[in-house]
Amino acid sequence: MRKRITGFSNPTVKAIRALREKKHRKAAGRFLAEGLRLLTDARESGHVPETLLMAEGRDPHPLLDALESAVGAAGGEVLELAPELLGKVTGKDNPQAVAAVFAEWDTGLAAINRTAAPLFLVAQALRDPGNLGTVLRTADAVGAGGLILLDDCADPFSVEAVRASMGAIFTVPLAQARWADFVAWLRGGQAQLVAASLRAAVPHRDAPYTAPCFILVGNESQGLPEAYESACDLRVTIPMRGRADSLNAAIAAAVLAYEADAALRG
Amino acid sequence: MRKRITGFSNPTVKAIRALREKKHRKAAGRFLAEGLRLLTDARESGHVPETLLMAEGRDPHPLLDALESAVGAAGGEVLELAPELLGKVTGKDNPQAVAAVFAEWDTGLAAINRTAAPLFLVAQALRDPGNLGTVLRTADAVGAGGLILLDDCADPFSVEAVRASMGAIFTVPLAQARWADFVAWLRGGQAQLVAASLRAAVPHRDAPYTAPCFILVGNESQGLPEAYESACDLRVTIPMRGRADSLNAAIAAAVLAYEADAALRG
Repeated sequence: MRKRITGFSNPTVKAIRALREKKHRKAAGRFLAEGLRLLTDARESGHVPETLLMAEGRDPHPLLDALESAVGAAGGEVLELAPELLGKVTGKDNPQAVAAVFAEWDTGLAAINRTAAPLFLVAQALRDPGNLGTVLRTADAVGAGGLILLDDCADPFSVEAVRASMGAIFTVPLAQARWADFVAWLRGGQAQLVAASLRAAVPHRDAPYTAPCFILVGNESQGLPEAYESACDLRVTIPMRGRADSLNAAIAAAVLAYEADAALRG
Repeated sequence: MRKRITGFSNPTVKAIRALREKKHRKAAGRFLAEGLRLLTDARESGHVPETLLMAEGRDPHPLLDALESAVGAAGGEVLELAPELLGKVTGKDNPQAVAAVFAEWDTGLAAINRTAAPLFLVAQALRDPGNLGTVLRTADAVGAGGLILLDDCADPFSVEAVRASMGAIFTVPLAQARWADFVAWLRGGQAQLVAASLRAAVPHRDAPYTAPCFILVGNESQGLPEAYESACDLRVTIPMRGRADSLNAAIAAAVLAYEADAALRG
């Protein structure tokens, strides 16, 4: 059943708006996603929101009807708001006609199954949520078995990361871990850990990648700590032919991932 | 000689702050860049700012001294401002200690020399300035001979694009053109035009790239118009193994550019 919300002081609306901030997301164990296409990707991947927010006076759409049905069937809540009120929730002047609240899920290392795919992505201290979402999107595209976030990364459940992921937040297995815990987990089974290096390393093209291959990229401004590179089985580097000494972290991850993909799938 | 600026109503400061908006940039033919590293890259590439803005009470730095000398030698202006005033110019809470105004340069197709490199990047209707700057950065890294922006792209001289370019705005030859003018120019000499396609196309891996090779990527949400793809000599596609049907435009450009680079430089 739909509820109608008319005032910004409504406590439900205030609580949902607060999910734009990390501390409120972590306290609530919930996050916000926006846009009909993204929410449809979520639904088709088996993720139904707890709460669906729709703007009054929106154009009807069969995918929105499907979403509303799914939320109803799962016992969730459907809220209708004036467009300007929905805009305050989403923080956009021109809000998309739909947003939703999801429960966060467990992102322990157990979320990663190393036999599920030949390739996995690992990012260390990735600070930009747009970059993080883009890496998730790339992980989906290249068919990676998951993304592992090491140390202090941006929050993958932030609005910006979810948006840049284009739905991949719902489809790509995701784990968050400290370096030491990750290494212990990794070395408990078969794995090749490959560093994207800015230092002396073998060319990324036709390097000896072996499955399951974990491609590790570092922080946007510092790259990987030297100790992390040393712990890797292989260090590869992408040719830098211009003035700059590095690529954007999400770009480096993608170039290496597609190179490894070609080698691993032969 | 340094000038000291104390009030936000100072007309010079107001004019510089206005360069954050495209219409003011185009009216003035000038743009804003920020950060010591970026401005040093500019200087080392032969681009000296007309006006240099430094925060009072900043830490001294030899690269900042070099910048100030270069501006002085070129007859430019050096302004010292209170940090909060500089923050108003740059639009950041935590301003970097230095910013500068540069004259825009000509971005006609004559800026591109097709014999200068085996590879060139072309982007159509790229709307996100961060994506655009990232493509510039990638063009530098892969040693592309230039970037050509087709139709209505984000402004490459915007603060966001300049920042994401990490200095490549100053080093990568840049042109802006309408599609028809670009095709006429391209076909006036030797060139292979390669479309990044979401449709039926040959796999991007080991496709028959030939120099000079122009890699064309489309708009973030629509991809390339079908007519543009048809006008290309080769249509390639990157394998999409997940749920999504496309990569981020800057990611697609980078994956194709490094693939073509390997083929062309053999």
